[in-house]
Amino acid sequence: MGCLDEGRFNVEVENVVSIGCACKKSCVEEEANTASIEDAVKVLLLGLGEDVNREGLRKTPLRVAKALREGTRGYRQKVKDIVQGALFPEAGLDNRVGLAGGAGGLVIVRDLDLFSYCESCLLPFQVKCHVGYVPSGQRVVGLSKLSRVTDVFAKRLQEPQRLADEVCSALHQGIKPAGVAIILQCSHIHFRDIESVFLDSNHQGWTKILVSSGSGVFENKSADIWADFFSLLKFRGIDKEKIHFRGSSDQCWCSSQSSLSAKASSKIEVVNPAMVTAVASILKSLGEDPLRKELAGTPSRFVKWLMNFQNSNLDMRLNGFLCNGMNSSNTNGKVNLNDKKLCSELNLPFWSQCEHHLLPFHGVVHIGYLISEGFNPIGKSLLQSVVHFYGFKLQVQERLTRQIAETITPLLGGDVIVVVEASHTCMISRGIEKFGSNTATIATLGRFSTDTSARTMFLQSIPSDTSSAGGQ
Amino acid sequence: MGCLDEGRFNVEVENVVSIGCACKKSCVEEEANTASIEDAVKVLLLGLGEDVNREGLRKTPLRVAKALREGTRGYRQKVKDIVQGALFPEAGLDNRVGLAGGAGGLVIVRDLDLFSYCESCLLPFQVKCHVGYVPSGQRVVGLSKLSRVTDVFAKRLQEPQRLADEVCSALHQGIKPAGVAIILQCSHIHFRDIESVFLDSNHQGWTKILVSSGSGVFENKSADIWADFFSLLKFRGIDKEKIHFRGSSDQCWCSSQSSLSAKASSKIEVVNPAMVTAVASILKSLGEDPLRKELAGTPSRFVKWLMNFQNSNLDMRLNGFLCNGMNSSNTNGKVNLNDKKLCSELNLPFWSQCEHHLLPFHGVVHIGYLISEGFNPIGKSLLQSVVHFYGFKLQVQERLTRQIAETITPLLGGDVIVVVEASHTCMISRGIEKFGSNTATIATLGRFSTDTSARTMFLQSIPSDTSSAGGQ
Repeated sequence: MGCLDEGRFNVEVENVVSIGCACKKSCVEEEANTASIEDAVKVLLLGLGEDVNREGLRKTPLRVAKALREGTRGYRQKVKDIVQGALFPEAGLDNRVGLAGGAGGLVIVRDLDLFSYCESCLLPFQVKCHVGYVPSGQRVVGLSKLSRVTDVFAKRLQEPQRLADEVCSALHQGIKPAGVAIILQCSHIHFRDIESVFLDSNHQGWTKILVSSGSGVFENKSADIWADFFSLLKFRGIDKEKIHFRGSSDQCWCSSQSSLSAKASSKIEVVNPAMVTAVASILKSLGEDPLRKELAGTPSRFVKWLMNFQNSNLDMRLNGFLCNGMNSSNTNGKVNLNDKKLCSELNLPFWSQCEHHLLPFHGVVHIGYLISEGFNPIGKSLLQSVVHFYGFKLQVQERLTRQIAETITPLLGGDVIVVVEASHTCMISRGIEKFGSNTATIATLGRFSTDTSARTMFLQSIPSDTSSAGGQ
Repeated sequence: MGCLDEGRFNVEVENVVSIGCACKKSCVEEEANTASIEDAVKVLLLGLGEDVNREGLRKTPLRVAKALREGTRGYRQKVKDIVQGALFPEAGLDNRVGLAGGAGGLVIVRDLDLFSYCESCLLPFQVKCHVGYVPSGQRVVGLSKLSRVTDVFAKRLQEPQRLADEVCSALHQGIKPAGVAIILQCSHIHFRDIESVFLDSNHQGWTKILVSSGSGVFENKSADIWADFFSLLKFRGIDKEKIHFRGSSDQCWCSSQSSLSAKASSKIEVVNPAMVTAVASILKSLGEDPLRKELAGTPSRFVKWLMNFQNSNLDMRLNGFLCNGMNSSNTNGKVNLNDKKLCSELNLPFWSQCEHHLLPFHGVVHIGYLISEGFNPIGKSLLQSVVHFYGFKLQVQERLTRQIAETITPLLGGDVIVVVEASHTCMISRGIEKFGSNTATIATLGRFSTDTSARTMFLQSIPSDTSSAGGQ
């Protein structure tokens, strides 16, 4: 499977700044790299038509630089250091009797939550990682080291299969076991472009892929030992048949690539060359080679993604629509509250970009409003357009919620409640790594801001199973 | 609710070593504290009858010291530094129109996974934290800061209600919002003593508690705003009625306390005074006051817990039992494999203590074996005793698995499979924090080490819903 390529392992292990020595030199380098990323991020913000001095953006370049350095710290970590201090002698059984302990007894660590950065588009992706190995030579490795080593390779620009292979190879070289098995369940934001989001109301938020890698006794995919591994993993909902094998399609899972190829023939997009150069310089500052084959198109793909959130990108396109919407509105001032009924549109999807970290957040918007008997509810597509209108910007969730509420309230008669539920990539990447967490914000107008029972009636109508926009 | 006590907040915020300055001084202090904890841990290991120079324990004092320092880093962190760089101006609505954005629009971050250390017994406990606040003054806080601040207080010796109050108070002082609401779902290992584990076969592995704290508009428990908060949290399975209110029982949730009081009258336990002094010195090295009321009994409670895992603690008690078990065994050598049937005992609970970090791991053992037609299966209680026999030691999971298999195989005819599934506290505390992760190990003897279909038949009989011993 190629994952036992010693040459590559040694490169991974040796050609990195060693931790603890040359501290001063690496501190200076660290600062220079951070400053260079900051400069590049300013170029990106200017390209988005933003004012880099406005309060919410002033420290964004520094925040982005820190987050990217932290999120790619794996380039500066040594697997050898991690594993070698944690190999413990552990008796096995005579192999004529059986397999256990330090000789032949399968060890599995399940459900390690990680995130990595997609080398194709620079967005973070989530990984649920399952690691197994079969000890040999009467020694075992400290369990937490299996987690630490996977993290070293996750914290680089990656592609799922390569991540699995690199972790497998590194553990095999580090532990020298009878074999290593890796299964990764990866979730990547699925987003092609604004048009596809508008056209496809059942748009899936995530692309998922299942990859594996094996060495030694796991090298052969049909070896019996894999059956043991899967028997223990079936509890985690993993279907062996769904594992992506290298070469079986070899299409990139990242939607930024399919977007490019699909559109290449129909339309040539103009990408701001200064922004592309800025992203290439970021790659270099992270310790990557921007000319590496897999990274060649990454800067322009990232810029294309970012430009979806250009200031006022959608304004001209939607302004007319909104005006029409308002004119055709059925609202007609005050009505007796008892005559009103609750209308709601739940689970309107949105995409946005956190202005503090230039990282996506996405989720769903729930809108409730009271209308008088005899009047028709407003069309869902109009509400969805308003949601996208404010989503496709550099945003914070609190503002998005307020802006949606402010915009729709004159259309809907003034009694409006808006709930936004979102997963923030900035809460899983960077130092935070709160994988399951998600955020809810509320705006209440008119009667909803004073009448608890009206609020509660609406809030309890929000289904729990769609409340999270999480990827796993 | 007392959580707005400014005096205490200022103590929390000011009386800590500031980060980034006085670096050299704090480095020297750090090293002295770590060395002092190492010395104390050596005293504990000697008190357990262990050889501190054996390979698996040689670096345990250093590992424990590092883990404890890391796990209590909150004593050395400043809330002010975290929050004040991340307050952003954000428009609200005219409050005659409604509540949203930077004025009145409720913001909730759900499902933050944390861990903390129980001040009563020094074991880590898990926390699922939900934070809400109502912005005022046209400003909001960066969402990730809600997570960072909760973490500052979680990384101290705590008790659930105090943790909730301190986080609430710190956020209120830091953000100056209209109000802050905190809900914590806490899970603590429930373990009284070896006897209670032996006597109660339905022994629950976890004590759970739900606590809340509120300031400002949340200060009144029956305020309408709590209804909104709970409406959004109901999706997380939280039942408002089950929240523990201060004073309603005021019994400590930690089972180490109920153990002490229940036994005080019947039996006076002798606790090694050198070990108790060692634990008190650890508390001091972590920056705590060992004389603080809540900590007064902690050293002796921790030593009592630890002594359950004393080397050869159970040996004399169980050796006779095991010999009897062996003599009464029904196995009688080789039988035609086709005549054999699969017997299994699933979900035998165990408790153990990781010898690398002196932290508990516990979970379940599944045992399968083949017996000839006409013979009766071995009694469950014997197998459970063997499991406890090897669990109540300083252990690693791989060795536990092997030892159980080695011991029972002569009783069970030689065709034996043992699967151990466990949650390791050392995987959630320390720097790892892989909350959902858990570990499986296997030993196979006789036919199970060569016959894949026999293995698979057994492995697939393990129910998935009890496979994890996780606390949440």
